[in-house]
Amino acid sequence: MRDLTKMMHPKSIAIVGASAKLGSVGNELVLRATTAGFKGKIFAINPKCMDIEGLPCYASVAQVPESIDLAIIAVPAVAVLGVLEDCVQANIKNAVIISSGFKETGEKGAVLETNIAEFAQANEMNIIGPNCLGIINTADDVCLNGCFAPIQPVAGSIGFATQSGALASGIINLLPTLKTGIAQMVSLGNQCQINALDVMEMWENDDKVKQILMYLESIPNQKLFREVATRISKKKPILIIKSGRSARGAQASVSHTGSLAGDDTTATGLFASCGVIREIYLRDMFNTAQVLEKCPIPRGEKLGILTNAGGPGIMATDTANDLGIELADLYKNTTEKLRAILPPQASVANPVDVIASATAEQYEEAANIMLGAREVDMLLVIYLYIAGKNDLRITESLQRLKEKYPHKPIVSVFMTTPEYDDDVKEVVPNCDIPTFRFVIDAMHGLARLIERKHYLEQENEALPEFKVDKERVKKILTESQLLGINQLTTMQSLQIFEAYGLPMPRFGIAQTLKDAKEIAQKISYPVVLKLSSKTVTHKSDIGGVITNIKSEDELVFWWNRLVDRLNKANLVESLDGIVVMQQISGSNRELVAGVVKKGDVHQFMFGLGGIFVEALKEVTFRPCPLTIQDADALVNGTKAKNIMGFIRGGMATDPQIMRETLLRISKLVEDFPEINEIDANPLMIDEKGKLLCVDARIVL
Amino acid sequence: MRDLTKMMHPKSIAIVGASAKLGSVGNELVLRATTAGFKGKIFAINPKCMDIEGLPCYASVAQVPESIDLAIIAVPAVAVLGVLEDCVQANIKNAVIISSGFKETGEKGAVLETNIAEFAQANEMNIIGPNCLGIINTADDVCLNGCFAPIQPVAGSIGFATQSGALASGIINLLPTLKTGIAQMVSLGNQCQINALDVMEMWENDDKVKQILMYLESIPNQKLFREVATRISKKKPILIIKSGRSARGAQASVSHTGSLAGDDTTATGLFASCGVIREIYLRDMFNTAQVLEKCPIPRGEKLGILTNAGGPGIMATDTANDLGIELADLYKNTTEKLRAILPPQASVANPVDVIASATAEQYEEAANIMLGAREVDMLLVIYLYIAGKNDLRITESLQRLKEKYPHKPIVSVFMTTPEYDDDVKEVVPNCDIPTFRFVIDAMHGLARLIERKHYLEQENEALPEFKVDKERVKKILTESQLLGINQLTTMQSLQIFEAYGLPMPRFGIAQTLKDAKEIAQKISYPVVLKLSSKTVTHKSDIGGVITNIKSEDELVFWWNRLVDRLNKANLVESLDGIVVMQQISGSNRELVAGVVKKGDVHQFMFGLGGIFVEALKEVTFRPCPLTIQDADALVNGTKAKNIMGFIRGGMATDPQIMRETLLRISKLVEDFPEINEIDANPLMIDEKGKLLCVDARIVL
Repeated sequence: MRDLTKMMHPKSIAIVGASAKLGSVGNELVLRATTAGFKGKIFAINPKCMDIEGLPCYASVAQVPESIDLAIIAVPAVAVLGVLEDCVQANIKNAVIISSGFKETGEKGAVLETNIAEFAQANEMNIIGPNCLGIINTADDVCLNGCFAPIQPVAGSIGFATQSGALASGIINLLPTLKTGIAQMVSLGNQCQINALDVMEMWENDDKVKQILMYLESIPNQKLFREVATRISKKKPILIIKSGRSARGAQASVSHTGSLAGDDTTATGLFASCGVIREIYLRDMFNTAQVLEKCPIPRGEKLGILTNAGGPGIMATDTANDLGIELADLYKNTTEKLRAILPPQASVANPVDVIASATAEQYEEAANIMLGAREVDMLLVIYLYIAGKNDLRITESLQRLKEKYPHKPIVSVFMTTPEYDDDVKEVVPNCDIPTFRFVIDAMHGLARLIERKHYLEQENEALPEFKVDKERVKKILTESQLLGINQLTTMQSLQIFEAYGLPMPRFGIAQTLKDAKEIAQKISYPVVLKLSSKTVTHKSDIGGVITNIKSEDELVFWWNRLVDRLNKANLVESLDGIVVMQQISGSNRELVAGVVKKGDVHQFMFGLGGIFVEALKEVTFRPCPLTIQDADALVNGTKAKNIMGFIRGGMATDPQIMRETLLRISKLVEDFPEINEIDANPLMIDEKGKLLCVDARIVL
Repeated sequence: MRDLTKMMHPKSIAIVGASAKLGSVGNELVLRATTAGFKGKIFAINPKCMDIEGLPCYASVAQVPESIDLAIIAVPAVAVLGVLEDCVQANIKNAVIISSGFKETGEKGAVLETNIAEFAQANEMNIIGPNCLGIINTADDVCLNGCFAPIQPVAGSIGFATQSGALASGIINLLPTLKTGIAQMVSLGNQCQINALDVMEMWENDDKVKQILMYLESIPNQKLFREVATRISKKKPILIIKSGRSARGAQASVSHTGSLAGDDTTATGLFASCGVIREIYLRDMFNTAQVLEKCPIPRGEKLGILTNAGGPGIMATDTANDLGIELADLYKNTTEKLRAILPPQASVANPVDVIASATAEQYEEAANIMLGAREVDMLLVIYLYIAGKNDLRITESLQRLKEKYPHKPIVSVFMTTPEYDDDVKEVVPNCDIPTFRFVIDAMHGLARLIERKHYLEQENEALPEFKVDKERVKKILTESQLLGINQLTTMQSLQIFEAYGLPMPRFGIAQTLKDAKEIAQKISYPVVLKLSSKTVTHKSDIGGVITNIKSEDELVFWWNRLVDRLNKANLVESLDGIVVMQQISGSNRELVAGVVKKGDVHQFMFGLGGIFVEALKEVTFRPCPLTIQDADALVNGTKAKNIMGFIRGGMATDPQIMRETLLRISKLVEDFPEINEIDANPLMIDEKGKLLCVDARIVL
């Protein structure tokens, strides 16, 4: 891991390309750095000036008589390498390259960028950028503003890294409204060297950074990302917006899994797998950040709602329901306590409505009773400023209660615009309780807090040992590879599944009608015939699947018909057998499990199967190898879970077997990374709830 | 319709219960009314005072020497009736009853409320309330503030009616942030007389009210609501939040339709059917209102995005995609024009990124080019205030462009907090272009604008005439009613469907094995046997459905077996026949259509059928009778539409027949309102795409 201490906590900085010209980047950098109250020394570097905004100015970093920890570089792209050479001469190990004109502009720029990256590597320099807004560290003992955003940021506890520099500027502008602040900001720029993962690791053990927020447009190294983010998200929350969601990323593929595995769908699985909170919208990310910053992880998940207005209380109940947050059922002794202190028209069931005429004392006491109740794990307080201006005390009440109940999150909604009305201004709490204008924003934050709670409580069970026949699979794969065939036949695929212990109906492979009769006899009627061909991808397209064969007579009839079809279609040669399989009785519960390799990571898909795979898109993804948590999350991740339970005409399937089936498939690709795609579709659930994989497709 | 002109445009008002006591409702009312700049005369009524806040004070309205248009009443509940009697004496025809202590407090209060409602009715008085916040009319020639919200509202063009008075107060507090304003506000209170529909009709022809926003907790009269809202929503947008969404409203029911028809699901259908925009969250409702207020309905639906920052541009593209908004593909001549004026690093594909270094002139010219392009129907402009403070002109540019392109909506996102920073303050437009801090909020408004466009463009095609055999249905229903049987048998239900021309497989009813053989012979094998019983609700529970019978031998075998089962279950007596039906080959595409009566309205349900009905809940509702638009919306309202098209192993179904099938079922309940529930489940689509209703259940 890189040591970026001096990058983010420099004792002295040089602004290379400092300028006296108002409105220029070089001037903005100087203004920002000087007005931020930087605790160290600032040197301006510009060969044409003597003095910039009162700073001593030098022609080059090499000429500064003191040691410099960090160079902030804003010279034309072509001049950057020269500046880095000066830096080496002056023993400067850290540089932020603000300058644009690199990779983002085309090939020429890309060459310049490669040159500086290689130079930095060779000279053990740390580089942020190029093409970035800069960096910020608001810690009292640093006060570094090394960027050209127009205003100073509100200080706080967020580490914010972004692939869009302009966005950093926008967020800094918005921070006062967002009621939160930043500890450190890194504009990643083109990430020619230091990337998002480096920054994440830098913040891993920095106590001033309580949570990590990122805006990313790409995830360069999924494997490393998973490792690093899994480790760090146990220590502090990581919230990421990954944009480019609408890009078409699914690859052309013969498997259902491949065709559904868009880059973005798999990113969702990756984030979930390593405990990263994926935010979709900026607004929501900062709502979450405010709650995570100011609230403890609750011990339970039951929400109390306290309001002085009925309508917003009802809307809050709706919203909690939308986001899967459960309302606490208040115990009798709690409602009795509330009844004793509240006006008779108040509602003492959750949501508790003290009604508009309640006094500030009554409101506080109601909050106190609810927070004191064992059955309430967290409290949403809604306070509408209605009439009679004696309610400034509410905010102080909440602060007191927060101290009294440190384990219970309190989140507030004040429907006011304090900025516009001095009378109202003081009503909004200045204490460290998250405050929102709308219930939905508060509730979003609470939902994320609960999500975080779940993640932190997850026990990392070790994977069970599975008995598998690795040798058999190896043999099948080697045979195929020798023949240069990538797509395994149905027969081979089924055999591989069998070798890895997947639950399957009884089946056998017939080369002749005599074989078929014997197999059918053994597994008993009704049976299914399935073509296994080296060239046919979708058997059903040529009528290669015959179901519900009830007797030997029917078997003979259909066998001959199938052979006829093959003859007509000139497919006899590519045949490698006909699968005779036990017919699953009357089930139309069809799931799908599958794997597709994207880049260097196998992506696992699970959801509703059969013809519904593409039509309903009720599938979710997780990266391989699956953990037990991943497998369970896949099983519970879509509406597919609703058909796994007891349902008209069918019993529930065993969740343990469901989980194990997914883990065995995951193990298969872990053991044989040369496998590119797997479809286990459909995975049927029969009337008795038994899970059975009735078809298989494997591509190398 | 009531004439509420003097209620909302009074020339003189009396505040009954006016008080000199600071912080009291009676005092707040006086303060609000006097400081709002009311254009008429205000009289304070209080027998104990001579003068309140400078107003002349009388003991009763009857003693006021001038005529009074409106009484605003804030006396204790028990005294209200007396005040109304005084009003009648003084010929006051309109009253707003602020006082609480009525229905909301229990039985006693309910009696008081009935009394005043009856008194008002008898004396032809208009009453708003009781238990409300009051009313507001911000029109220049009125300036009525007859409520006790703490501040004066921002004036604008919204008519806002709410069942929660406190919420009105919260919204008034928030208006400055919401960048919109209200024309009139009515706090509906308990709606003892004037209700939400009256207010809607009042605003129908009031030009000052450009859109109607409502917060409702209940919809008292669905039929009337549908009629009124359908008419008015063609003239101006109606946005409604209907709370209590999470309440469990589904009734205990034998039909799938009945069990899925929660009150709230059907409210969604009702709103959609009459062009009401249903908003889920307050925040979103006001985002929509801002866009609808300041933007024209666009001529097309293609969005252009202009940004000076890459990241937010990408996020905007994602968000547009999330909300189903299509980005315009810029024509070559547009991109060439952009290329000619923008810096070389700018991106001239949509989203157009002028990059941070572009000047305000370049930004304006880029916006001008995009708005001038035929392929762009509306424009989202994102402007990040980055550095160099010369960009105040952006807002003026946008205002100029709005005038130049009056038919093209322009919506802006400025990521700033002007309230907190004077430097930035001026950057945010003061012009009449909607402005948001976050892309998602702007995009939500645009999505609603497009929804509105679709609604306005809908042609109201007349329903086609269907040939149906009404007499046959009448006969079946009468038979059942005479026997006191509510749940029709499978046989009867199928016959009714047949009579109304629903698409069905060939079938016949057998009383004997001989019948069955003949029928099977006629419709040809394979066939299905279905029990039709007067007592069995779910045939499949007792094995009463046998599929895929391929020959007469099999028919004999299964017939006997079915009779055995019936004997064992003691069900022979209740049998009214066995349905022999053509087997639909190899289809597992199952839809469901159904109807359930809720209150006085039949609710129509359509979606994914079979075992998936309850598990997947992919269904939507519309009130009956269905219009053609309703039928089409049902067909396209869920993922069910994805299995109606061409799909592996099946051809697309005819949308015309799909629509007609739904309309025929709707006609059935229109003709026979005594029908309580219908399930057409499953409605199968066979391999050839033919729609076939294979099972029916009708309950009276």
